[in-house]
Amino acid sequence: MIRIRKGCKELSKQPSKFKMVDISPKDIVKREATAIGKLKLRNETAKKLREGKIEKGDPISISEVAATLATKNTSQLIPMCHNIPISKVETATRFGDDYVEVEVRVKAIAKTGVEMEALTAASIYLLNVWDMVKKLEKDRNGQYPDTWIEYIKVKEKLKATK
Amino acid sequence: MIRIRKGCKELSKQPSKFKMVDISPKDIVKREATAIGKLKLRNETAKKLREGKIEKGDPISISEVAATLATKNTSQLIPMCHNIPISKVETATRFGDDYVEVEVRVKAIAKTGVEMEALTAASIYLLNVWDMVKKLEKDRNGQYPDTWIEYIKVKEKLKATK
Amino acid sequence: MIRIRKGCKELSKQPSKFKMVDISPKDIVKREATAIGKLKLRNETAKKLREGKIEKGDPISISEVAATLATKNTSQLIPMCHNIPISKVETATRFGDDYVEVEVRVKAIAKTGVEMEALTAASIYLLNVWDMVKKLEKDRNGQYPDTWIEYIKVKEKLKATK
Amino acid sequence: MIRIRKGCKELSKQPSKFKMVDISPKDIVKREATAIGKLKLRNETAKKLREGKIEKGDPISISEVAATLATKNTSQLIPMCHNIPISKVETATRFGDDYVEVEVRVKAIAKTGVEMEALTAASIYLLNVWDMVKKLEKDRNGQYPDTWIEYIKVKEKLKATK
Amino acid sequence: MIRIRKGCKELSKQPSKFKMVDISPKDIVKREATAIGKLKLRNETAKKLREGKIEKGDPISISEVAATLATKNTSQLIPMCHNIPISKVETATRFGDDYVEVEVRVKAIAKTGVEMEALTAASIYLLNVWDMVKKLEKDRNGQYPDTWIEYIKVKEKLKATK
Amino acid sequence: MIRIRKGCKELSKQPSKFKMVDISPKDIVKREATAIGKLKLRNETAKKLREGKIEKGDPISISEVAATLATKNTSQLIPMCHNIPISKVETATRFGDDYVEVEVRVKAIAKTGVEMEALTAASIYLLNVWDMVKKLEKDRNGQYPDTWIEYIKVKEKLKATK
Repeated sequence: MIRIRKGCKELSKQPSKFKMVDISPKDIVKREATAIGKLKLRNETAKKLREGKIEKGDPISISEVAATLATKNTSQLIPMCHNIPISKVETATRFGDDYVEVEVRVKAIAKTGVEMEALTAASIYLLNVWDMVKKLEKDRNGQYPDTWIEYIKVKEKLKATK
Repeated sequence: MIRIRKGCKELSKQPSKFKMVDISPKDIVKREATAIGKLKLRNETAKKLREGKIEKGDPISISEVAATLATKNTSQLIPMCHNIPISKVETATRFGDDYVEVEVRVKAIAKTGVEMEALTAASIYLLNVWDMVKKLEKDRNGQYPDTWIEYIKVKEKLKATK
Repeated sequence: MIRIRKGCKELSKQPSKFKMVDISPKDIVKREATAIGKLKLRNETAKKLREGKIEKGDPISISEVAATLATKNTSQLIPMCHNIPISKVETATRFGDDYVEVEVRVKAIAKTGVEMEALTAASIYLLNVWDMVKKLEKDRNGQYPDTWIEYIKVKEKLKATK
Repeated sequence: MIRIRKGCKELSKQPSKFKMVDISPKDIVKREATAIGKLKLRNETAKKLREGKIEKGDPISISEVAATLATKNTSQLIPMCHNIPISKVETATRFGDDYVEVEVRVKAIAKTGVEMEALTAASIYLLNVWDMVKKLEKDRNGQYPDTWIEYIKVKEKLKATK
Repeated sequence: MIRIRKGCKELSKQPSKFKMVDISPKDIVKREATAIGKLKLRNETAKKLREGKIEKGDPISISEVAATLATKNTSQLIPMCHNIPISKVETATRFGDDYVEVEVRVKAIAKTGVEMEALTAASIYLLNVWDMVKKLEKDRNGQYPDTWIEYIKVKEKLKATK
Repeated sequence: MIRIRKGCKELSKQPSKFKMVDISPKDIVKREATAIGKLKLRNETAKKLREGKIEKGDPISISEVAATLATKNTSQLIPMCHNIPISKVETATRFGDDYVEVEVRVKAIAKTGVEMEALTAASIYLLNVWDMVKKLEKDRNGQYPDTWIEYIKVKEKLKATK
């Protein structure tokens, strides 16, 4: 079906460099994944966060909204992920002396697991907290010596049997 | 599973601030929603619109295309909405003496209703008409004394029994 | 430069159907636009909203976040709008007996005005409030007899002289 | 349900200008489509491409990633396309004396065919190759006399019987 | 600044695989690029297109809108492209006996050329025409023996001297 | 300018819950930010990664592409971030015995710093590596006992004096 032009020879052929998993044969079942993540902060910042006193606005609200959007957009952020319908996203936040920790649970009825969605949501959540407390974490040179995301992990992944 | 660091105690825990509806247990059935919306215009603008004489191009075509795209993108515009496959979008436009009105019908076979998709589509439709007639609606100070979106409503929402 | 194929004649030529404004010659100056919008609600819903008692979460927070995102994405929602850098988005919310009203101010230093950004933000804001109070506004048939967006308008548009 | 204002008469009514196909009644079956596309290049560029010596990075990798993302985003690029879940995207690349050719196969279990997804992916693939070899294809005036996309076609479209 | 863990040695280091051009030192000047593209169609389809008789709606309108959106979204479709503000997009359409041809001109005042934006817009334009005439181009087996995009090229690229 | 309806009184007024920084008065200067991040892996996986033997494709290429796209999309992922033009993104990857580490440098000439862009890019980079090695990191129960993102930090932030 390809038009042949004179003087052309096909010199080589190369398959896909990336192997996207073919999910056609998989079952549509309940899937659930929970990811956790932790953002290290200064004690004063963590205190203000716990007490709802961040001047730029409530980081927890904005982070939760951004995380929910990211869950539904994961297949554009992680190219080899499939676009799947999400049933539910929920978060829990834990406040420590010098950190904030999030737990994100994602549910779907789909042909593939949702751990990448949960991990992406947890990452976006913590990045948004960071963005909201930037002013409090910067030193006089505009650097962040006391701030880092220190732990993002899959806590649990579940798959229903059909 | 969370790494314990010395001197840290967990001070408080907070559940999701937003309750995204868990649609896992809902039935996949035919859903339909119709939204209407009205944009108030100057008489001369409404006349030109009816007669297809808007210099910047046909507002109805561009609004319909933008509304169709918005329907499929609603779950990124309205964070607590679920991403669902849309079966069909259709619009009807009514021209009045000093307004234009749109009716958008959205269909899906999904676990949740599509009224937010229809309302979003109607809003984006009218905003696009506005954008196309801006020049005709501005007064000499660049203000819009005669232009407003005056009514966006769900006309009807339907759900098939399984 | 176009390859000529035998037996082809060019039959007609058509210019752009839509005239996107060419902003090349415009000045880069401070621009500001304020849009307002109103969502009619049931008295009980408006009361719960005022008192921060919406079960699904705080509609004001989520609407403000969604409106801010929409401001920056307007050129994908309204095809003839230009993509411009936004300096600032801010909102004010007014609570009435049976409505909620938003005012969105958008600032940019750009070659074109930002009223479409402000109008889009106000629309997305109100749609998100609606989404958060859906349960309270639906009647027993799943319809919304008491809910509508009743007024979206440009309150003021400003342009600095160079 | 529409509020009547005095002195208003409805002057005309217009149905959708665009007929999005209603896919509600269609069967959910396996769909597959393969698109091919060819980018004409200079001999030296094609040689460097074959040998993996493009200074800006490997065009094949980036093109494949971009094509995969485009497949999942087709319903935003082509307004009348439906948003459907994609099961699998895979590509094959053929290197010629003065061209590169791609074959993209897209699979889905859906109510509608995926040929537009495959064609969009093939186009985005070739545009990305072009972007990566720009420097080698430009003449001294910054023009591209030797570069063009010369063939994008559906090679095969398949639909399983239920 | 990197936390050292015992037993870890750094084994190797790898620079960017892709060299995004650093446009920091480039001048902000007027840029313009014109791309052309051609879609081969059946004679009857091309005739209907010329005469504005495509049942699914006017392909030219929808293609122009989609092309305009794609121009502003090129930096997400072509990863190594920079996100730049677009001043103007315009198209011209030529109808032939068995083809349709588009010419897209993109203008920007930017640090980098806009030929990829123009090429992307032309591609998306033609893909949308194809989508709108699918029904007329398919044979009885659902294949497209007579349809292909046969030519996408940069017609001219211009850059103002500062 | 707001239409007054009888029986309505304005009950309260609320300013923005979130304070987006107004960047209007800031200088447009060179900005640069470097973020680092580390993904803990199993020894065998890290070895395969170093040796380019990941069956699903080269994680480094796909991660770099995804990170570059995310940099340009940060203002949609982090709602309070401004949309700014990016001049350059570059990465460096370091392979350890049981981890992979990335360093992302982002440059812009803008009114605001780019550390959130660099942090977002580093996060998306590592999430993509994880996605590509999922199969090797899962235990027999589909869990990830040995995998976590353990460190995401701003290494350096620079701002030119005007």
